[in-house]
Amino acid sequence: MQSSSANSGNSDRSELAIIRHIRSRAGRSASKAIRLGIGDDCALLRPEPGQELAVTTDLTIAGTHFRLDWHTPESAGHRALARGLSDLAAMGAVPIAAFLSLGLPRELAHPKGRWATSWAARFLDGLLALARAYKTPLAGGDLSETPIPLADIVLIGSVPAGKALLRSTALAGHLLYVTGVLGGGAASLPFLDRMAKESKEGRMGLNPRRIPKDLKPLLARHFWPQPRIAQGLRLRSQGLASAAIDLSDGLSTDLTHLCEESGMAAEIDPALLPVHPGANLGYALHGGDDYELLFTASPDARIPKTIGGVAITRIGRILPARRNRPAVTILTPRGPEPLKPRGWEHFSDSAPL
Amino acid sequence: MQSSSANSGNSDRSELAIIRHIRSRAGRSASKAIRLGIGDDCALLRPEPGQELAVTTDLTIAGTHFRLDWHTPESAGHRALARGLSDLAAMGAVPIAAFLSLGLPRELAHPKGRWATSWAARFLDGLLALARAYKTPLAGGDLSETPIPLADIVLIGSVPAGKALLRSTALAGHLLYVTGVLGGGAASLPFLDRMAKESKEGRMGLNPRRIPKDLKPLLARHFWPQPRIAQGLRLRSQGLASAAIDLSDGLSTDLTHLCEESGMAAEIDPALLPVHPGANLGYALHGGDDYELLFTASPDARIPKTIGGVAITRIGRILPARRNRPAVTILTPRGPEPLKPRGWEHFSDSAPL
Repeated sequence: MQSSSANSGNSDRSELAIIRHIRSRAGRSASKAIRLGIGDDCALLRPEPGQELAVTTDLTIAGTHFRLDWHTPESAGHRALARGLSDLAAMGAVPIAAFLSLGLPRELAHPKGRWATSWAARFLDGLLALARAYKTPLAGGDLSETPIPLADIVLIGSVPAGKALLRSTALAGHLLYVTGVLGGGAASLPFLDRMAKESKEGRMGLNPRRIPKDLKPLLARHFWPQPRIAQGLRLRSQGLASAAIDLSDGLSTDLTHLCEESGMAAEIDPALLPVHPGANLGYALHGGDDYELLFTASPDARIPKTIGGVAITRIGRILPARRNRPAVTILTPRGPEPLKPRGWEHFSDSAPL
Repeated sequence: MQSSSANSGNSDRSELAIIRHIRSRAGRSASKAIRLGIGDDCALLRPEPGQELAVTTDLTIAGTHFRLDWHTPESAGHRALARGLSDLAAMGAVPIAAFLSLGLPRELAHPKGRWATSWAARFLDGLLALARAYKTPLAGGDLSETPIPLADIVLIGSVPAGKALLRSTALAGHLLYVTGVLGGGAASLPFLDRMAKESKEGRMGLNPRRIPKDLKPLLARHFWPQPRIAQGLRLRSQGLASAAIDLSDGLSTDLTHLCEESGMAAEIDPALLPVHPGANLGYALHGGDDYELLFTASPDARIPKTIGGVAITRIGRILPARRNRPAVTILTPRGPEPLKPRGWEHFSDSAPL
């Protein structure tokens, strides 16, 4: 863990408090894979023989990927790490280390001098709780002052050489599956928007006690997404999946990526989609932030009904790409129609890049 | 390379332009270490047997680590990558892959629709030119819209297991050395400040043609720091150094880190310091951004006068830590005096965290 800022006066104290907090809560890693963690110019990882390392980075920006007035700091930290873990899950990789580059405005690190209740400390609590749950030691990172809070999460995972699940290996005739249920991550947004306008909780997110009981299951999908590490691992280690991608930007967008990288097309049957009870078909097709896995498998593969308690549902099939055939089509009473990628625009009022 | 934003309308076009630019210029890697680069949920690295991986992340934020009105976009991109490469150099590691998480305001990605001359394209040009020079393929990253430009650079390097140079292994009686000359990175700042006020070049940095000829060598140290990869590699592979750290925050600060991590103290002789001809002792002691290496070696080690054309200079020695002895002392005509860490505050007007 390095810092990008000066060592002087108050600045030093808050910075050291943050680094101490991270070091103490990240703990001494029992992991054989990490030979040297936080504290030097680099961390040192010792990969097991015969393993490849899967590496992914994910930027999380206040106002784009979370909102200070919607998400508690713990939820923002959890979601930042969940995005990276979900990328590892899509490759069938097991996490071995995380790195966190954290940018913080000064007032979120030391509000009135109480570190433990600061936004930054609570963000780290949420992130590190998920890291512990998925046995992912925090091995390093960087710290800087920024005008808005942001975090870049690097995840490194391990996968037997040549065995990672890829986006680019879907085959015509293979069937299309998803884990879990879809649309819950995005169907929460109108409720979050309305509640934030009513409650004006400020920058510590919505007070969990004020969330109506009937909304809690839906909003939990949004606030605490669970990366499908166990599911990706099983699909990979048992040779069940022929290709995989995680659903971070929405089914229509991520399936288009999978088709493009594989040089294939795909057809979805909306009647098969496992729509979250609090969502609708539109959210399930286009909503982001579900962090489920989308994968393909041979019609001969024996795909279990559930993996680790999470449902596996067939939703369509892979077709050969043809000139004039859209990458993704959806079955309708009028026949197949194009399904354009309408990926999620996160929470930004302005359109993203 | 993933994107954190939506796939719709103009946003999609600029985003894809950026990703295409990165993909095409990053090139297909000839590296055996990268089995899968940009384009999937994760990149896949194949470490060589018997090697450990050194991993470092460095946040670069506009207004803190560079200034839009001082640094050309190419210099900002070069410096962002140089920071990470310098961390690898300090471990004696050889770079095998870089990852870039890039945050951009919309107006810097597509000014009046001309991508090639945009701030973003020129930033990538500077970054990728240095990446090529140090044979460091860009293997992945992330992209998001942010209010100010920022980049998180992840560097992964390779080093024989158990052989990395560490901060924590300095020994009492060992001698203290630096590569190159010190103070040039920071001595440039007053000139940059004055020129920016006079020229009002805006957000593409100072026009290189308007920089006075006599200032060019000094400012080149600041704009185009060279990570000491070859020097770190030689010090490590020939067993010359007993400990090392890179000089990013300034000698007084980084030497304090080295002493703290090693449980040692150190003494500097200012008469020995290789001060940049455009700098003075204060800049050499406390100025940041030099990206030289600070290392320790046994008095019996035969340290070359230069490595790869870069001077190696003895500047002091390591002492046992004692109660009441400051971590770092400097010799003066009145005897040894404490040298407090007064690391560099970068370019931020406000004090950093």
